[in-house]
Amino acid sequence: MTDKGSLLQQLIDALRCLPGVGNKSAQRMAFHILQHNRDGARELAEVLIKSVENIGQCQQCQNLTEYDICSICINPRRDSHCLCVVESPADVIALEQATGFQGHYFVLHGRLSPLDGIGPDELGLEKLNARFLAGQLQELILATNSTVEGEATAFYIQSLAQKHKIPISRIAHGVPLGGELEYIDQGTLAHAFGSRLVVED
Amino acid sequence: MTDKGSLLQQLIDALRCLPGVGNKSAQRMAFHILQHNRDGARELAEVLIKSVENIGQCQQCQNLTEYDICSICINPRRDSHCLCVVESPADVIALEQATGFQGHYFVLHGRLSPLDGIGPDELGLEKLNARFLAGQLQELILATNSTVEGEATAFYIQSLAQKHKIPISRIAHGVPLGGELEYIDQGTLAHAFGSRLVVED
Repeated sequence: MTDKGSLLQQLIDALRCLPGVGNKSAQRMAFHILQHNRDGARELAEVLIKSVENIGQCQQCQNLTEYDICSICINPRRDSHCLCVVESPADVIALEQATGFQGHYFVLHGRLSPLDGIGPDELGLEKLNARFLAGQLQELILATNSTVEGEATAFYIQSLAQKHKIPISRIAHGVPLGGELEYIDQGTLAHAFGSRLVVED
Repeated sequence: MTDKGSLLQQLIDALRCLPGVGNKSAQRMAFHILQHNRDGARELAEVLIKSVENIGQCQQCQNLTEYDICSICINPRRDSHCLCVVESPADVIALEQATGFQGHYFVLHGRLSPLDGIGPDELGLEKLNARFLAGQLQELILATNSTVEGEATAFYIQSLAQKHKIPISRIAHGVPLGGELEYIDQGTLAHAFGSRLVVED
């Protein structure tokens, strides 16, 4: 064991603030940094400070950005009439990488969960509603996760949007591409079977 | 995908300097920090800078420390006549945690590997030899790993020490405690069988 107060031990402890990093991984990271990559560590420290100081939420879509308005919202080539609601900034990255979606996003940073004290105010649904009120939306895509809370959140937003007669869609749920029926969980399979689509000629 | 130049993307890239952290983990870490632990990130940045600036090698044992002489070497209650040679600072931590060893260490920061250009000079064996020359050692414990290079390193150090008539021991290799013979690799089993010890009455 290193001394409790040594700088090395402080470094190991500090690295544990990262998610998924336990004592052994933190030790490994500390030794790696000190023995092989001091320049990388210096840069990491600088970027960490800069990020923590400057990155906040986009005033329009709540995505993480160092500007007032994020690069997606400010891009004039993207379609502001089409809005996709997601739970987290990571979902935005996943959708941007996987799809050719050219509209705007709205990031909830969570999902409705009354037991945890997360209601409409915590998710910024007021801001989202203001966008519905503005009357410029031609499509609203609900891309929250298909968990119980995610579904409840989607349903709540849907009821808000319906008042303004905005066309709403929900991303499809079913058997993943390349998945074998045999190994799919029962809930997904039942949903996929129940939501079968007519094959067009 | 986030913009290439955005601060968020810079943070994700910088986090990848940590070992075992790929793109997805770095993303997850960045979001976790920004959403839940900005204070932890600030502290990590400070400790990183301090560590990179101040942590160097102990002048006596080459272990990592922010002082000239590490806390183990400077501790008057530890036995300086007993020296344990290990490959890395992580090995020191492992031995300190698992054993009651009260002697000194010598950290090689690697192993002899001529093909990679690592010879006696790179491992600081000159410094180790000076310690042999001083003539104060009563036991030398070789605790390098049991890889080919580790064994070669142990053998080399052994040949250095033998000139000074220092009693030498090597940590035991064999079947791990709690291990079942059935699942042990052949090399270990053959070694354990060949190195069987007489059971005393």
